[in-house]
Amino acid sequence: MPIDARHKGEKMRPLEGIKILDFTIAQQGAYATLLLADMGAEVIKVEPPGQGELGRILGKDRRTGISAFFLAMNRGKKSLTANLKTPKGQEIVYKLASGCDVCVHNFQPGVTEKLGLDYETIRSHNPRIIYAYASAFGKAGPKRTMAGNDIVAQAMSGLMSVTGHDDGYPLPAGVTIADHIGAVTFALGIITSLLVRERSGLGQQVDVSLLGSMVAAQSWELTYYLMTGELPPRAGRGHQQLPLIWQVFRTADGHLVLGGVDEGRWSGFCAAIGREELAHDPRFETTRGRVKNRAELFAILDEVFPTRSTAEWLEALEPADALCGPVYNYEQVVNEPQVIANDYIVPLEHPQLGSIRVVGTPIAFSETPAAIAGAEPSLGQHTQEILLGLGYGAQEIVRMGEEGIV
Amino acid sequence: MPIDARHKGEKMRPLEGIKILDFTIAQQGAYATLLLADMGAEVIKVEPPGQGELGRILGKDRRTGISAFFLAMNRGKKSLTANLKTPKGQEIVYKLASGCDVCVHNFQPGVTEKLGLDYETIRSHNPRIIYAYASAFGKAGPKRTMAGNDIVAQAMSGLMSVTGHDDGYPLPAGVTIADHIGAVTFALGIITSLLVRERSGLGQQVDVSLLGSMVAAQSWELTYYLMTGELPPRAGRGHQQLPLIWQVFRTADGHLVLGGVDEGRWSGFCAAIGREELAHDPRFETTRGRVKNRAELFAILDEVFPTRSTAEWLEALEPADALCGPVYNYEQVVNEPQVIANDYIVPLEHPQLGSIRVVGTPIAFSETPAAIAGAEPSLGQHTQEILLGLGYGAQEIVRMGEEGIV
Repeated sequence: MPIDARHKGEKMRPLEGIKILDFTIAQQGAYATLLLADMGAEVIKVEPPGQGELGRILGKDRRTGISAFFLAMNRGKKSLTANLKTPKGQEIVYKLASGCDVCVHNFQPGVTEKLGLDYETIRSHNPRIIYAYASAFGKAGPKRTMAGNDIVAQAMSGLMSVTGHDDGYPLPAGVTIADHIGAVTFALGIITSLLVRERSGLGQQVDVSLLGSMVAAQSWELTYYLMTGELPPRAGRGHQQLPLIWQVFRTADGHLVLGGVDEGRWSGFCAAIGREELAHDPRFETTRGRVKNRAELFAILDEVFPTRSTAEWLEALEPADALCGPVYNYEQVVNEPQVIANDYIVPLEHPQLGSIRVVGTPIAFSETPAAIAGAEPSLGQHTQEILLGLGYGAQEIVRMGEEGIV
Repeated sequence: MPIDARHKGEKMRPLEGIKILDFTIAQQGAYATLLLADMGAEVIKVEPPGQGELGRILGKDRRTGISAFFLAMNRGKKSLTANLKTPKGQEIVYKLASGCDVCVHNFQPGVTEKLGLDYETIRSHNPRIIYAYASAFGKAGPKRTMAGNDIVAQAMSGLMSVTGHDDGYPLPAGVTIADHIGAVTFALGIITSLLVRERSGLGQQVDVSLLGSMVAAQSWELTYYLMTGELPPRAGRGHQQLPLIWQVFRTADGHLVLGGVDEGRWSGFCAAIGREELAHDPRFETTRGRVKNRAELFAILDEVFPTRSTAEWLEALEPADALCGPVYNYEQVVNEPQVIANDYIVPLEHPQLGSIRVVGTPIAFSETPAAIAGAEPSLGQHTQEILLGLGYGAQEIVRMGEEGIV
């Protein structure tokens, strides 16, 4: 559908006029549609009456009754309750589908068929719809019907096998990174499908999986393995393919990372750390030497860096033009001026919590800026508004509420 | 520009007819345009004559002269050499810009102005162009002019502060995950801008950064911190906010992960691991008990799981419907039938290496499938073809080659 002209004096958002029928749960699906909501799409989140979706329960704070998880994954969406196991609940969804541009879900395999939400059924109500599906393992193959989640994908994609130390456990990244990568990849698939439809009129199915998204996330490292057959050791404090001082070091008050010291920067680096003699040390004079003798080199650096604070080192390293940075904890991240200046953390007026700060949207558009559309919806907050818009009468809506349909 | 009708009997790809002027280097920019190439865009990678971009050198295999990194980041693109420090080189680029839909780069701040590739200049040749820029730290703020890369972003976004064990170093994820997340987020910004332009005619600038993409990747965990002020400990073998058996365990021959055992699955899980008595153990009977006494519970599980192989445990856990999976190494990943069935790893005919396998594209479109368009280009492989297309004469092209312009 064409977009309206811009509001007077106000920039439109990138997806203004796009409507999303959203059955997502937890993170992989829900963060994808959150990106669409930030970009101005109208996202109608359909939840079961009563408890709502799993994300509302996950990590609910007992004092406030608010879930940081649900807020982080669902702000700016609308919430409609509908019991999808009832014919009336399905009727509501089909009416919505006929007016939406995209239908999104990350149900476990088999669920959509039971609920009448499979592609064929949805498409019969809207042939041009984009039907977007995020799974754990993909649509084909022996595990296509299996459930999976973030840590399972971190494990089965190989990421854990290269994270941590060789003498310890294979470790997950400390956040739900597979869910996030799955979500952004999913959003990319959805927007691309919208672009295809805009250019060709074609509606279609698009699907991504946690496993596939995480395999793609390791394109370099897996390609290297496929070319050489060499099984990578764990990355430990750095990265197996980047041996040239790509590593974390302890300082007097914390940790810093170096992101590579190349040929041209080596002598300046030695000067900056007050160890000019290393530049002429035969073991380390050449790149090849530094790679070959890196255990000895790193042992020296492990003695050097703990002698001063992180801030002192970052200042000292500046003239050497070294790629480096502090290891921030979360307090430092949310207060870093760079993070605030770019709206990566933004203020939000929350109906229960008042003025709070949340994570912003990561893409900056100059002419059609994305922005948070509001707090997370309470369960069924928009049920009445949406049902009235579909033509249901006020009394009928009350009755459906009493019957547990919405 | 409108897309052509479909080829007879052949499905079009999602971005057919879209042309990308690509100055990207390394990963954050280059993987973004690789996704566009997989989706059918014509991606013209502009490289300096002589050595080409950094990615060609990174990890070059001495035996074959092929870089797994460059292959993984640039397959299916075209390579044009142009010396951007010469007026003639700039002229070529401006001619290209006027016929392209998107101009993409991840130069260090300040470089585009020196090379005449800033937005204002490029736009003067094509007012409708999408000008896409990926940086380390974003366009605003005190660090906007600083260089940064993957491990710096993993460090400064807080990811490393929650990865690893509390008594050890903060660790990076074992692959260049910040570059990847930055790249997919970048591709999402580019495609969204194309959709906006298709709907409204508006060209614009779009930018993402490693730091912003990585902050967004921790939306849940950072929002939890912002709401509670509780600094998270490192995730260790699991995830701080998911204490209910979301963890990696050692088995007789490797490792497996459990992705949560909820209320309804607890007694079945106890049966599956042959420890029925735990279901009635007062310490673990309730969810709250299992969270509170998880150190004791995990100590028991750390004794149980090493008694059998990973495969045996996965089979045993199946009736309990437990979310679990093996920790695969790279050999196991690339041979997993699920990975192959979904084209996450695909065959590629390579001009130097012959039949090889590489990482596929992570998004499955039913009507406009994405697919690898070919191997990585050799340096300047398409220079002549592209220059002829721009109207340069054959002799002129030879002369420009001799003068180091292309």
